[in-house]
Amino acid sequence: MFVTLDRNASISLVDQITLALIERIQSGLHHDGEKLPSVRNLSQNLGVSLLTVVKAYEQLEKKGFIKRHHGKGTFIRIPITSEVNKQENDPFNWQHDIQDYIGRSTFGQVTQKKSGAYPLHLTTLNTDQLPLDLIIQASQQALSEATSIGSYASQIGDPDLRVVISQYLRQWGDHCSPSDFLITSGSQQGIDLIARTFIGPGDVVIMESPTYPGAIDAFRSRGATILTVSLNEEGMQLDRLIQLFDRYTPKLIYTIPTAQNPTGVSSPLKKRRQLLEIAEIYHCLIVEDDPWYEIYYESPPPPPLYLLDQTGHVIYLKGFSKTLSPGLRVGMLAAKGPILYKLLNVKAVSDLCTPLLNQRIYYHLLQEKACTTYFASLRKTLRSRRDLVHQLLLKHAPSEVTWRLPSGGYCFWITLPPNIQTQELIAQSAQLGITLLDGAVCHPSISDHKHIRLSFASLPLQQLEEGIRTLCQVMHDIQSTSLPFTTETSI
Amino acid sequence: MFVTLDRNASISLVDQITLALIERIQSGLHHDGEKLPSVRNLSQNLGVSLLTVVKAYEQLEKKGFIKRHHGKGTFIRIPITSEVNKQENDPFNWQHDIQDYIGRSTFGQVTQKKSGAYPLHLTTLNTDQLPLDLIIQASQQALSEATSIGSYASQIGDPDLRVVISQYLRQWGDHCSPSDFLITSGSQQGIDLIARTFIGPGDVVIMESPTYPGAIDAFRSRGATILTVSLNEEGMQLDRLIQLFDRYTPKLIYTIPTAQNPTGVSSPLKKRRQLLEIAEIYHCLIVEDDPWYEIYYESPPPPPLYLLDQTGHVIYLKGFSKTLSPGLRVGMLAAKGPILYKLLNVKAVSDLCTPLLNQRIYYHLLQEKACTTYFASLRKTLRSRRDLVHQLLLKHAPSEVTWRLPSGGYCFWITLPPNIQTQELIAQSAQLGITLLDGAVCHPSISDHKHIRLSFASLPLQQLEEGIRTLCQVMHDIQSTSLPFTTETSI
Repeated sequence: MFVTLDRNASISLVDQITLALIERIQSGLHHDGEKLPSVRNLSQNLGVSLLTVVKAYEQLEKKGFIKRHHGKGTFIRIPITSEVNKQENDPFNWQHDIQDYIGRSTFGQVTQKKSGAYPLHLTTLNTDQLPLDLIIQASQQALSEATSIGSYASQIGDPDLRVVISQYLRQWGDHCSPSDFLITSGSQQGIDLIARTFIGPGDVVIMESPTYPGAIDAFRSRGATILTVSLNEEGMQLDRLIQLFDRYTPKLIYTIPTAQNPTGVSSPLKKRRQLLEIAEIYHCLIVEDDPWYEIYYESPPPPPLYLLDQTGHVIYLKGFSKTLSPGLRVGMLAAKGPILYKLLNVKAVSDLCTPLLNQRIYYHLLQEKACTTYFASLRKTLRSRRDLVHQLLLKHAPSEVTWRLPSGGYCFWITLPPNIQTQELIAQSAQLGITLLDGAVCHPSISDHKHIRLSFASLPLQQLEEGIRTLCQVMHDIQSTSLPFTTETSI
Repeated sequence: MFVTLDRNASISLVDQITLALIERIQSGLHHDGEKLPSVRNLSQNLGVSLLTVVKAYEQLEKKGFIKRHHGKGTFIRIPITSEVNKQENDPFNWQHDIQDYIGRSTFGQVTQKKSGAYPLHLTTLNTDQLPLDLIIQASQQALSEATSIGSYASQIGDPDLRVVISQYLRQWGDHCSPSDFLITSGSQQGIDLIARTFIGPGDVVIMESPTYPGAIDAFRSRGATILTVSLNEEGMQLDRLIQLFDRYTPKLIYTIPTAQNPTGVSSPLKKRRQLLEIAEIYHCLIVEDDPWYEIYYESPPPPPLYLLDQTGHVIYLKGFSKTLSPGLRVGMLAAKGPILYKLLNVKAVSDLCTPLLNQRIYYHLLQEKACTTYFASLRKTLRSRRDLVHQLLLKHAPSEVTWRLPSGGYCFWITLPPNIQTQELIAQSAQLGITLLDGAVCHPSISDHKHIRLSFASLPLQQLEEGIRTLCQVMHDIQSTSLPFTTETSI
């Protein structure tokens, strides 16, 4: 277990350890009853005094997160697993009886893992890869306008930003106007607004499988019936899609046509037009999530579905958290026709409006020509990283491990052979500081034990190389120990 | 009709007029079929060329927001009112058939009205009333940290901010720790998270009546059964509350115990303790919304319910959009016990996390001692404004009009006599540039035609005085014309 400590922070080390442990528990990193390191071990690992750890453990026990058994050790107690964890005399026990309406939430598993030297699960860039100067300059421009911090934004979003984002999209095609845009608090909110506006219990949603886990969570939370379509090298398998339309009445298709997360696949123009045609025939909404459009490694992708659509079937989501600034949380939703105003109502209930300061920063930022240069150089760096990982995998991974070279985005989607189970690989890699995303969270309905997602975006090159080599070694180790037991010809 | 135009903006005047009109329509400011000013009139009113207005109207017609009938004039078409507005050959017509799940949304009516010289409906401060220097200084500190714009925040919120907000609350009482806090994208999101986590169709929610419209929207959107308790000069009528508990099984009580919106009533300590006791007996959650705690005009309010609670019955919401910065949208939700982790899951689905930059700005801002001075001086200014409006109403309003002097907050809740209907008052006042909040939107269930909410926070003093005088005159005018028809003794 590792906790990043900041000795210059305004919070004590005791509080830092306490809060970090609480977050680890909340993120699903520990299971109920799990034994924690001894006070001596943790103090050595973190380079802090014994007393610091004792105090942190005391705080955690007081808050009900851990339980110390004299002579046996310190154990995790996970408060939300109800009955089992009820402690006599805990004044909060009554809360376990409140019925809640929580759906699946995989966010903790996807983004909150912070341990280990090789965080290969993270699809974010490091601060030193981002155009911080440009963003700070745009922030200064925004701050110089008194209204940015002194006014609510309008519900639909800042009019200037809506003009600029529509100009930005026009680089890639026509059919796009400022009045089509609703500014959201990140693309996740866009997905959530769509789910809340149009999806209710039993409504049929079609998703690619695998896909972005946050979208699965949003549609699940509305009680959707999720049907899946797998992907080939050109994206969604359209014959399967048509079969689904023959049998069901899908209301909405969620797709990432460019540099699909997690597979890295992009659809060619012809396929985009076919998908649109299907949506038009069956009057089904398409939600096009497009965070990766700028990050391609071969030729530029064909226009987004949204810009090909003239009949209001596509709702487009564009976010820049992955490529420009994770800390600002501004997303753009575009929709043609009356549905935009429906989404607007739900936006108001959700959070009234997206912070005006953040919108004004993007307004200034997206006008910068230097953004184009930045994206070009980012593509170049990432492409060489992708190629490096590809070469390393070719060289070091067991021959039965397979993957497709991603056309864009930050991830490899890796298929493991039958004798390597994801859970075992993840557990053993974690002991060596490697964090991976379990492919299972990317599936809406099937149980997947043979995929991991591996990101190459942000790790320093040497660490990236070490991480991949070590991961491959773990794969070999698992294979060598499991082969005698799993090969059918063995006795 | 008035549109604020910015001749230095990057958008053309045509686009500005077009967008402003679209927003007015979306905010419910116009009804379907309403006649717009002629091109000549609007060009004169706005000081723009005839051609500018012609082009704006052309754009609006193309987008389907208005319809021009040769020789008759230009008329509003409201796209979301379905069937009636379907236009033949409109490629988006099919969208009218998509079933949606939108509940009540009153936000447009509450905050998006921007017309008129006397916006007495707005409960926001002007930028020149805000501590902009302090906020800009805090923003500069936040921007100097690369992670503020370069990293996602953790799902639960920035640890430093959670420490600072818990210290901030400790000014008013104990029982509060950093680990109890979840940072939200404004208090509205806090309400929405609570509704989504704990409320489903048929669950019983108790609300004060009148109350904050955004909370009604959030609980309505979950299909709650809303029961109401009216207020006296000490807040919620607890005998009525107990009656409800005798007959129903309420899951949650939403209350604003300090400077209640819209009535301005604050509960004394004794009543707070009684409310808590009721919640404990019946194991009911209390949602305490507390944006106004700093804005009191007599003695400081008793501690928030949350700080009196030791058994995890209160979920506390604290926002500063009303008092510090409407443009940042950071709110804090506090809850003791395991329910916090349930809310956290729904937070992730909603928007992953609140922007880290905005959290870091509040982290620096709330540590500023100068905030205390600012609040003290704000109270003084607002108190004299409150007293001014009180005096003006005493002097000019018809004697049958009644109100209670607000103990805090920005609003008067005004009761009209039977011969003045809210709708008529609002319509006639609007013609003189006065915008009011219709009391009806503050009620979860009853139809109210005799209240208006009137804010005294932000209008320049002279305008405020003119606005109130004019409003009183309109009341007299309505009375003088309506009296002969409504008084029962008249023939």
